[in-house]
Amino acid sequence: MATQGKVITCKAAVAYEPNKPLVIEDVEVAPPQAGEVRVQILFTALCHTDAYTWSGKDPEGLFPCILGHEAAGIVESVGEGVTEVKPGDHVIPCYQAECKECKFCKSGKTNLCGKIRGATGVGVMMNDKKSRFSVRGTPIYHFMGTSTFSQYTVVHDVSVAKIDPKAPLEKVCLLGCGVPTGLGAVWNTAKVEAGSNVAIFGLGTVGLAVAEGAKAAGATRIIGIDIDNRKFDRAKDFGVNEFVNPKDHDKPIQQVLVDMTDGGVDYSFECIGNVSIMRAALECCHKGWGTSVIVGVAASGQEIATRPFQLVTGRVWKGTAFGGFKSRSQVPQLVDKYMNKEIKIDEYITHNLTLEEINKAFDLLHGGDCLRCVLKV
Amino acid sequence: MATQGKVITCKAAVAYEPNKPLVIEDVEVAPPQAGEVRVQILFTALCHTDAYTWSGKDPEGLFPCILGHEAAGIVESVGEGVTEVKPGDHVIPCYQAECKECKFCKSGKTNLCGKIRGATGVGVMMNDKKSRFSVRGTPIYHFMGTSTFSQYTVVHDVSVAKIDPKAPLEKVCLLGCGVPTGLGAVWNTAKVEAGSNVAIFGLGTVGLAVAEGAKAAGATRIIGIDIDNRKFDRAKDFGVNEFVNPKDHDKPIQQVLVDMTDGGVDYSFECIGNVSIMRAALECCHKGWGTSVIVGVAASGQEIATRPFQLVTGRVWKGTAFGGFKSRSQVPQLVDKYMNKEIKIDEYITHNLTLEEINKAFDLLHGGDCLRCVLKV
Ligand SMILES: NC(=O)c1ccc[n+]([C@@H]2O[C@H](COP(=O)([O-])OP(=O)(O)OC[C@H]3O[C@@H](n4cnc5c(N)ncnc54)[C@H](O)[C@@H]3O)[C@@H](O)[C@H]2O)c1
Ligand SMILES: NC(=O)c1ccc[n+]([C@@H]2O[C@H](COP(=O)([O-])OP(=O)(O)OC[C@H]3O[C@@H](n4cnc5c(N)ncnc54)[C@H](O)[C@@H]3O)[C@@H](O)[C@H]2O)c1
Ligand SMILES: [Zn+2]
Ligand SMILES: [Zn+2]
Ligand SMILES: [Zn+2]
Ligand SMILES: [Zn+2]
Repeated sequence: MATQGKVITCKAAVAYEPNKPLVIEDVEVAPPQAGEVRVQILFTALCHTDAYTWSGKDPEGLFPCILGHEAAGIVESVGEGVTEVKPGDHVIPCYQAECKECKFCKSGKTNLCGKIRGATGVGVMMNDKKSRFSVRGTPIYHFMGTSTFSQYTVVHDVSVAKIDPKAPLEKVCLLGCGVPTGLGAVWNTAKVEAGSNVAIFGLGTVGLAVAEGAKAAGATRIIGIDIDNRKFDRAKDFGVNEFVNPKDHDKPIQQVLVDMTDGGVDYSFECIGNVSIMRAALECCHKGWGTSVIVGVAASGQEIATRPFQLVTGRVWKGTAFGGFKSRSQVPQLVDKYMNKEIKIDEYITHNLTLEEINKAFDLLHGGDCLRCVLKV
Repeated sequence: MATQGKVITCKAAVAYEPNKPLVIEDVEVAPPQAGEVRVQILFTALCHTDAYTWSGKDPEGLFPCILGHEAAGIVESVGEGVTEVKPGDHVIPCYQAECKECKFCKSGKTNLCGKIRGATGVGVMMNDKKSRFSVRGTPIYHFMGTSTFSQYTVVHDVSVAKIDPKAPLEKVCLLGCGVPTGLGAVWNTAKVEAGSNVAIFGLGTVGLAVAEGAKAAGATRIIGIDIDNRKFDRAKDFGVNEFVNPKDHDKPIQQVLVDMTDGGVDYSFECIGNVSIMRAALECCHKGWGTSVIVGVAASGQEIATRPFQLVTGRVWKGTAFGGFKSRSQVPQLVDKYMNKEIKIDEYITHNLTLEEINKAFDLLHGGDCLRCVLKV
């Protein structure tokens, strides 16, 4: 490898300030240190968390930074002590690490690894608490431990999933965030059983992946709720078999669903990030057993509320991060499922652009037509 | 039976108005109709739900009524079609019915039976939507389908658990509410595993039963939280092995617990009925898996709140009614466990009085010394 051990200068989209267009820059990417992996990113998609931090509403957002966390690429070089991947391996960077050693990983109860959070939470790498990115000498913060809006990025070895080299990277990049989140919310967090009735609030990528997961689990009624009627046609292909637009009803949406389902649904999923809808999603659940899973990410500081009686009478309120999937162990399995045609990916990709067009891609994300826009990096 | 088929006139404590002392009256108790059972109540305890309705704060409370729902007695006579109990059987009236036929009972997922709720919710019997109690011709409402503050009561057949006739009724009456609620919150709702750390907010009867259940489940740290230091000594006998009085700390109680337990407890139980403590109980749970169970009953209209991030990062919020126990099937098993010395009851009984002294018993309930006061009826 000609580049190994050397600084690589490449193109990246830098967010200098909240809400200002990203700037395509020549960025210097330092070599990986101990426990680190430098990855050539070939394709990246955009997700709402990128847009949220970029908007400046995330109080923990740090600028300047390189955003991006839904991507696929090839290992360029590895730092000291890295054994599980080697140059040339095809990988998906994972914002949820999996060290297999910490209290969280060993609990068998969660996919939230604690090992590198102290560093990724503040935009740096564990080893020296510094960034590997710089532009003309100024350090640029990492984002979510992934920073995939760059031709090269450096990630922790506990944050890369090695995948089947035959998998098309321009598709499986989506397995870095939204699609697994929806599938896993159903399979891992809610554990929906065959014959269940399911309500899905919000029919974006995450909501559609919930529908796909629910259909695969054998759910009977899969009710999609969205305020944008354009979402309904496409949602049929993902398994949604009933549609409700809250704007068509005078009653609160939870009451509409309770009435439709003789007492409420067995499972509900909030895939929007709206705290009032999170409440509605809980309250449309059946007394005695209905389980509601919060998938959407609300703006900082907002709170959910309900009457405790909702829980005392048997409803369960949960949430999910990355659908409960253990990243390094399970993302490769999801790639295999895609290769075996057991899960969809292509259908979520509505737009393809290049890294240079990233600002246009953010605009698309805020329009109603786009599910996922994949950028060639 | 000399009384069978006839109106029985007996003593009962009638609540004529909210917050006014109960009146010991000669009450007429009509014979049981189809699907009903008339029970001679021998012992009854008082629980906070009685006090709550009596206080007038329960918007669904109906007056005049006969309160009481934690009791034991002997079947006096049965109405048409009643096959599962007969005169002379020892029974515990159950405010949670179990019909074994409705959607709820057949779900296998909940103990909340729906069959007679339409009647018990409005203080009457299913068969004719009327009360079986009257005083000088004026009907007196039933309460929770049990009304045990009376020498005789009429209940639905789906609301009586037939128990071992050798069991002492002056003790096992407690299996009508508080003790099963606490034990079941641990065993059925939370499903606490050996080695878990547990936090219990409120060390009254319900909280102590949670402690007993947690100890039996093999929990390691059982942390009791109460604002009344007098609760701590007694709580040791029930398994609590660490104590925290929120008044001794400047930090919010959830932070105190997170710090004490390296990140939070595995399970928490709110046994007070205070919505701010319900929030604290959720937030003191460990990221990734901590589960909080609401057992306390909050005043009508009050709401719980938290940031959705608490759930997205893996905490689970649940509640329980009667500890998830199926009443007719499982109360007899709890009686057997008591007879086999596997669960405590005697230790929860701090006071013994007679039905005539019921107003004194309510006073005791509001003092800090009383766990359960059992009245000889
Ligand atoms: N928990 C996690 O790990 C995780 C991972 C990825 C994404 N997310 C979050 O999931 C959410 C959904 O992501 P997405 O990519 O599918 O977003 P999206 O914007 O594509 O989809 C949201 C959908 O909700 C609809 N909607 C908006 N307001 C509504 C309302 N009041 N009632 C009904 N429908 C409404 C919109 O029309 C849209 O179809 C976001 O909050 C995102 O941040 C969470
Ligand atoms: N869910 C159910 O099926 C069910 C069944 C029975 C009882 N309950 C409810 O359970 C709750 C407890 O019942 P109980 O009989 O044990 O009551 P209790 O009054 O005997 O016990 C409550 C305890 O909480 C303590 N406390 C009060 N405020 C506190 C605070 N802010 N912080 C810490 N401790 C505080 C008190 O000192 C007391 O020791 C009640 O709300 C009751 O209505 C629910
Ligand atoms: Zn994302
Ligand atoms: Zn870990
Ligand atoms: Zn009670
Ligand atoms: Zn039933």
